[in-house]
Amino acid sequence: MPVQLPIPQRADLLPVAGVRLGHAEAGIRKAGRKDMLVVALDEGSSVAGVFTQNGFAAAPVQVCRAHLQSQQQAPGSTALGIRALVINTGCANAGTGALGLANAQATCAATAQALHIQPHQVLPFSTGVILEHLPMDRLLAGVGSAAAALGSSDWLDAAESIMTTDTQPKAMSRRLLISGRPITISGISKGAGMIKPNMATMLGFVATDLRIAAADLQALCTEAADVSFNAVTVDGDTSTNDSFVMIATGASGIALAPGDAQWGEFRAAMIEVCQRLAQAIVRDGEGATKFITLDIEGATSTEEAKRLGYAIAHSPLVKTAMFASDPNLGRILAAIGNAGLQGFSAEAVRVWLGGTLVAEQGGRAAAYTEAQGQAAMAPAEITIRVDLGRGEVSARLWTCDFSHDYVTINADYRS
Amino acid sequence: MPVQLPIPQRADLLPVAGVRLGHAEAGIRKAGRKDMLVVALDEGSSVAGVFTQNGFAAAPVQVCRAHLQSQQQAPGSTALGIRALVINTGCANAGTGALGLANAQATCAATAQALHIQPHQVLPFSTGVILEHLPMDRLLAGVGSAAAALGSSDWLDAAESIMTTDTQPKAMSRRLLISGRPITISGISKGAGMIKPNMATMLGFVATDLRIAAADLQALCTEAADVSFNAVTVDGDTSTNDSFVMIATGASGIALAPGDAQWGEFRAAMIEVCQRLAQAIVRDGEGATKFITLDIEGATSTEEAKRLGYAIAHSPLVKTAMFASDPNLGRILAAIGNAGLQGFSAEAVRVWLGGTLVAEQGGRAAAYTEAQGQAAMAPAEITIRVDLGRGEVSARLWTCDFSHDYVTINADYRS
Repeated sequence: MPVQLPIPQRADLLPVAGVRLGHAEAGIRKAGRKDMLVVALDEGSSVAGVFTQNGFAAAPVQVCRAHLQSQQQAPGSTALGIRALVINTGCANAGTGALGLANAQATCAATAQALHIQPHQVLPFSTGVILEHLPMDRLLAGVGSAAAALGSSDWLDAAESIMTTDTQPKAMSRRLLISGRPITISGISKGAGMIKPNMATMLGFVATDLRIAAADLQALCTEAADVSFNAVTVDGDTSTNDSFVMIATGASGIALAPGDAQWGEFRAAMIEVCQRLAQAIVRDGEGATKFITLDIEGATSTEEAKRLGYAIAHSPLVKTAMFASDPNLGRILAAIGNAGLQGFSAEAVRVWLGGTLVAEQGGRAAAYTEAQGQAAMAPAEITIRVDLGRGEVSARLWTCDFSHDYVTINADYRS
Repeated sequence: MPVQLPIPQRADLLPVAGVRLGHAEAGIRKAGRKDMLVVALDEGSSVAGVFTQNGFAAAPVQVCRAHLQSQQQAPGSTALGIRALVINTGCANAGTGALGLANAQATCAATAQALHIQPHQVLPFSTGVILEHLPMDRLLAGVGSAAAALGSSDWLDAAESIMTTDTQPKAMSRRLLISGRPITISGISKGAGMIKPNMATMLGFVATDLRIAAADLQALCTEAADVSFNAVTVDGDTSTNDSFVMIATGASGIALAPGDAQWGEFRAAMIEVCQRLAQAIVRDGEGATKFITLDIEGATSTEEAKRLGYAIAHSPLVKTAMFASDPNLGRILAAIGNAGLQGFSAEAVRVWLGGTLVAEQGGRAAAYTEAQGQAAMAPAEITIRVDLGRGEVSARLWTCDFSHDYVTINADYRS
């Protein structure tokens, strides 16, 4: 049961000019469910990406990196530009060695053939069971079906096509006026467990019809990821396949660059879409019953603030206390003390639950009452605010609690 | 239900000359249970300690550090030598600011008065609820009762007196012949959750009647902690109160030093006692159903090997797979990939479950069958062995699985 995550309505999801979507039921792991998606992009699109830091990066991640690098080395080259994404669920093609790499490349080749482009113009993505090989017969048939189904942008179908243990599809759109004309941002994401700092078994795809230079798009992609997909955690496990891709098709005919007057407005809208899609993953976190915002202030660096936030977010004792709606301050303080910050001073730290100051000067705040703590923990959305009192830098992270259902889901699901 | 943890038998636990134990039911948190222990040491005892790295170190830990430092600055001084330990459960006296520090000092003063020694000759230890103040009236009465009850060494009573969420007391003894005469090592430990790398809500006390110089004892204490109490983890949470103390009373009249012929034999026995006591904490880990040994080989340093081991041991996905007896290799490989090792090569890694090679060259081992994996996961004790293939250093850690009962215990227990 996701935490306050509305199901996206088809009518609210807007097509992006220059993006065509096609899905299929390829039966990769189970029959009768959407499990393949092909995304075709108009010539001239810019594509940027951020990928997992896991040392066992999956074969499709390796291929994505190589194909994006080719594009970046020849910006504007129509022969090297990315023209398609191909995504399958049911099998992650991770921990699959040389054959896995060959299969990812064959997937690109089949997609390229169907779309009359080159294999290096395709980015492949896989999610699902690790250490299994892709069932290439069904997968290649699925590529053909999905490519044949390419049509107008139905982002809800697309969102459903990339779900694994997700209980709900995750998608959203925004429309802006740039130079007086409407442009669109639409995106989808998936993921429910194995979600952590440097990406997660998480896929995110966001597209706009603006024209943006590849280097500017990559910078925005990295910036947006840092405050969205790289600022959420469910269980601290980072997957082998995490990928976040940002696309600018240019099909609106409107170009935008960081120096332009409306860049800030667009940037803010894009980041908001990424944050909503990332938060949706936490709200749908495996077994989640609480959506927790961690506001870290008074740090000396973003790295320090995030490190502290993750120390709280990854503490099983804090997470089970959240599940119990228990204002267990001791566990929060212990988690703060465990972040391993150099020169840490417990006396300088202040902690709030919701709007209530609960701890200061190394102990419980004098005015704090247990009733205030209970009230702060009761809602489905909880904010923990920590002021380290040693600098000016802030960071915000999002996580969820740790419930019986997390154990049930992960002791039963063979991933 | 602990994992293959035999209940210690009173007859197997041996008194240590120079150590007197006394316990009381002080009603710190609950009436009618042993919750205070006083340990009195003969004059001339050496005492060494290792304490939590948590930035919110509890008041008693701060006092212990100061009192041990005084002893170390004047080795051999009878006026500064540690002569007593006083331990209470039910309240951790952590996150309690200036009043907490005063209460810990008052506890030392009361113990000193009862034993006719000085307050700085007493080490205080507390475990239990965080952010609450000690109930000083009941605590001081308990100190008196425990001191009055000081008698011969009943280590089983002592072990029971320091339990919190432990389901079983943890104690063991070893007897050795040194210079042809019997010497004794006896110890107790407690802890079941909040157990992690740099100590845990874990208390460990080990005593021998050998005479060992304070500096040698501190070196052995640190060495033993690194391969015992600092090599176990339940949930990755490090408590504010973790303390491990090693005592050498000298009451046997037999002195031993690192250069001596039998030092190696004694050192091995002492380390074994510490490892058994540390392992007992994991076997009694909150909700534990599996006892897991992590053997990391082929690392370039101990730090690297431990970092990798903890990455596996702290992965909720690995731990829930262990609970399910599921040979989920993908989760193990993903956890290895997440350890963040510099220059990591997935191709060089080999992984064994039990005695079976399950992964190599970036994927599943060719000869591995699912039936082998199932067989390796079936027992209550499981060994995961990882060879990084990049160095000569090994490390061994112990952990447990992650079960429904862990969530139940920690969502219900207000600590």
